[in-house]
Amino acid sequence: MSGWSKARDARGERMSAAASLAKGKIVEAADATALLERLIRPGDRVCLEGDNQKQADFLARALIKVDRQKVHDLHVVQSGLVLPEHLELFESGIARKLDFSYSGPQGAALARALDKGRIELGAIHTYIELFARYYMDLTPNVALIVARQADRDGNLYTGPNTEDTPTIVEATAFKDGIVVAQVNEIVDKLPRVDIQGDQVDFVIQSPTSFYVEPLFTRDPASVTETQILMAMMAIKGIYAEYGVRRLNHGIGFATAAIELLLPTYGESLGLKGRVGTHWALNPHPTLIPAIESGWVEQIHCFGSEVGMDDYMRARPDIYFTGKDGSLRSNRMMCQNAGLYACDMFIGGTLQIDLDGNSSTVTPGRIAGFGGAPNMGADPHGRRHATDAWLKAGREASDGEQTLVRGRKLVVQMVETFGDKMAPAFVDELDSIALARKLDLELAPVMIYGDDVTHIVTEEGIANLLLCRGRAEREQAIRGVAGYTEAGRGRDRKAVEALRQRGVIRRPEDLGVDPLDATRGLLAAHSINDLVDWSGGLYRPPSKFRNW
Amino acid sequence: MSGWSKARDARGERMSAAASLAKGKIVEAADATALLERLIRPGDRVCLEGDNQKQADFLARALIKVDRQKVHDLHVVQSGLVLPEHLELFESGIARKLDFSYSGPQGAALARALDKGRIELGAIHTYIELFARYYMDLTPNVALIVARQADRDGNLYTGPNTEDTPTIVEATAFKDGIVVAQVNEIVDKLPRVDIQGDQVDFVIQSPTSFYVEPLFTRDPASVTETQILMAMMAIKGIYAEYGVRRLNHGIGFATAAIELLLPTYGESLGLKGRVGTHWALNPHPTLIPAIESGWVEQIHCFGSEVGMDDYMRARPDIYFTGKDGSLRSNRMMCQNAGLYACDMFIGGTLQIDLDGNSSTVTPGRIAGFGGAPNMGADPHGRRHATDAWLKAGREASDGEQTLVRGRKLVVQMVETFGDKMAPAFVDELDSIALARKLDLELAPVMIYGDDVTHIVTEEGIANLLLCRGRAEREQAIRGVAGYTEAGRGRDRKAVEALRQRGVIRRPEDLGVDPLDATRGLLAAHSINDLVDWSGGLYRPPSKFRNW
Repeated sequence: MSGWSKARDARGERMSAAASLAKGKIVEAADATALLERLIRPGDRVCLEGDNQKQADFLARALIKVDRQKVHDLHVVQSGLVLPEHLELFESGIARKLDFSYSGPQGAALARALDKGRIELGAIHTYIELFARYYMDLTPNVALIVARQADRDGNLYTGPNTEDTPTIVEATAFKDGIVVAQVNEIVDKLPRVDIQGDQVDFVIQSPTSFYVEPLFTRDPASVTETQILMAMMAIKGIYAEYGVRRLNHGIGFATAAIELLLPTYGESLGLKGRVGTHWALNPHPTLIPAIESGWVEQIHCFGSEVGMDDYMRARPDIYFTGKDGSLRSNRMMCQNAGLYACDMFIGGTLQIDLDGNSSTVTPGRIAGFGGAPNMGADPHGRRHATDAWLKAGREASDGEQTLVRGRKLVVQMVETFGDKMAPAFVDELDSIALARKLDLELAPVMIYGDDVTHIVTEEGIANLLLCRGRAEREQAIRGVAGYTEAGRGRDRKAVEALRQRGVIRRPEDLGVDPLDATRGLLAAHSINDLVDWSGGLYRPPSKFRNW
Repeated sequence: MSGWSKARDARGERMSAAASLAKGKIVEAADATALLERLIRPGDRVCLEGDNQKQADFLARALIKVDRQKVHDLHVVQSGLVLPEHLELFESGIARKLDFSYSGPQGAALARALDKGRIELGAIHTYIELFARYYMDLTPNVALIVARQADRDGNLYTGPNTEDTPTIVEATAFKDGIVVAQVNEIVDKLPRVDIQGDQVDFVIQSPTSFYVEPLFTRDPASVTETQILMAMMAIKGIYAEYGVRRLNHGIGFATAAIELLLPTYGESLGLKGRVGTHWALNPHPTLIPAIESGWVEQIHCFGSEVGMDDYMRARPDIYFTGKDGSLRSNRMMCQNAGLYACDMFIGGTLQIDLDGNSSTVTPGRIAGFGGAPNMGADPHGRRHATDAWLKAGREASDGEQTLVRGRKLVVQMVETFGDKMAPAFVDELDSIALARKLDLELAPVMIYGDDVTHIVTEEGIANLLLCRGRAEREQAIRGVAGYTEAGRGRDRKAVEALRQRGVIRRPEDLGVDPLDATRGLLAAHSINDLVDWSGGLYRPPSKFRNW
């Protein structure tokens, strides 16, 4: 039988080699690097848990210190490549190949490392695309994961940041891989079990608590009147028109503005209970006023957010929580909810070309995709109807179809000029030049134009569902591209005709007066206002405290 | 705080009401109905675990016996509606609304119940679409699940049929719902933990073991020479041409024929290691010869298959297994693998229209979708490249695209005439008339034509990727539709032109001689041959034993 159990045999050998370092499943922090040297072999696929938020930072530092004669040429398969240590693994030759989803703060370092040939890039995935490959052809041999607490049987408590952990552990543990967890503390009894000890081989108490980045906190004080105008148009021209109840928001300020306008502007339009009731969303503090005003029925979260724990604990009807009272997040489940159970994805981008393709790549930075391409795509496998979905499908229909079909709303919000007056509308995405330079198989495109249904700028809304043919789409995009070169290149007659047909709608066509777009409309004007809305339950991290 | 914890408060009341029936978490089988009467309230969303294979049949029988004054108008949210008891719930008024995925043997009874107005239909979903809604707007209040064993803490061992359980339990347990498990036995120590007891409220030992249906066993003796011919064409014209390594097979005889031809015909074409190495697949016994011949590197399974346990236990390098040695399946993970990590879905269907839309609805039967629409769709959120995917994308490109994009291969295999000489190619799918009759919002379409890339019949392969425009697609489909009315209605010149371009390929164009398509080519001719290939490890259920 050994011919069919190579992985199990290899696991057995490694576990034996490591046994002397462990008492039961517990290994001392000082022995972490020695443990990894005994468990990991050259060429292994390793997931060094780096999620969107929480990081196995102690294990990352332990891995950097391994003897490179023993451990090298690893294939890193993890969603987030966000710590400097993650890049260091490649610089030092411990790792060679990379499949990932999101690099955030390491985007520039990653692009440099690719350019220098230090990293053999597999692909830049969406989150659940990478998770899917854990069960197909990228199963980790070793998973180095992170949790808050462990008991002596290896059961783990992740607290609110469960995130990717169950998905990583299941793939690894059930394919004879090895699972090592860093935890903040080892306790006798866990508040709840997020990962069963059955699937965990070793536990190490790290000297310091694991790192979590607040990623989803947007200070209302920074929301601009342009963003408020765009948010008003989106609410009136999209949320209300389609009756969008189930949705996901991106992380930008324009969607934060929408969240802050629901209980004010949205309320004045009579939309409460008719839009924004069910969400696949991280715990955005800017949604607190809408929740407190009774707009929201339920939210499932990819991960957590620093400072939101007590608030969520006090709102179990809204959030998914455990018996310990704290949030249970799960990126795999939430991304699936975003894919198949949401009627709309709305988010920002940095560049859009004249076909509607969008990208967040800027020269010299590869930020990765995260979840946007997954949620910002029309799932052809969807087979349940809602009014919003059917209306979008009718608009997209060319009249030839004999079958009723719906469409997901995929909305891109963008100011025509971004930071340093860089135009958002371009002839060619910067990501194409980058792909050429780095010899990537695919240019990093966030959302392809054929999935985008609406583009919202300060100049108006372009409804691409109503466009027939490529030329019309191009004019619809130019028609909201403002004073960018793309906007100035519009065919004025064609754009006027599109406006007559309602394909392009200006603020005045929507009955939105730009003079009304003032900060006074926001339900909260500061982080402190959000704290007040929460009854003091929201505890913003210090960098957001300025009172 | 109680204004924000209605579900938790309701849970507390129900748990208190039920407490006197339980010792710890254990409830006697005789008290099952009384337990459900105390836990379930009118209008609740209930998941009565009915997966593709395993069934919470004891709990289904217990639920039927509830006092209808106490428990009525339930909203059933579960993937499989396959037991007679499931229908009885609606006939008796215990349940009113239904959201499901697959009905299989109850397809006719379901259609009748819909026609009589006994069921308010939400929608017919794909599996992960329904699971996604568990985390959005169809979260169960009560989950009645099934496992092999429990310990006294409520930890569960599912054995090979883990299937939907983790996905159901997580949604329910972390939204203050209630989880009740029926198990075959209660033991002191589980072979492994599949569901942590933390998430399970009550355990009942059922008087009889739960029901599992062998769904994926195809007797090689029943494979026809027509199917062998189609399989040869598919292997040479699709698997080889695109180099398809990661894939899913449907459950029909045509794909079973492919599995049985890999180690013979496939070997003769030199394809070993180049195609069919990684699979999202149930444990098909007909894949045993290919596995034993070294074709397969890894398989992740949605569920299990009766008789395959010992074989899989002895092949841990191929299958995902637990520390107890037996299979770990997981439908959510495997369907995601099928969606995002496979380059091809290939399966059969019953009807195809001239746009390429397909359906398995027959007059008076609604079988549901299962996973086909999910896996048989091009995922626009995919961002990793393979040769197979890129080649399909190039063929689909109209030359206007500036961006390199790939395509999933979605192949429909169908004989031009099916059972009772019913034509497979039709002007209008029967599902459209059924949708009209039952007033469904959407006609039940298995796979939409715009996602289908190839149609394989005994007359040849139509490559729809190469078609430009609707008229050309129609002729390509007619061109492989044989002597059906649709086939006879072809424009002969147009079809010949398509053949010249390689859009349509006949067996002779592929170098496949129909005279070679004999049963002698199959690696196994009977179930007994499969047992032999497995070295006696495969133990077919008695209904497949005829020696």
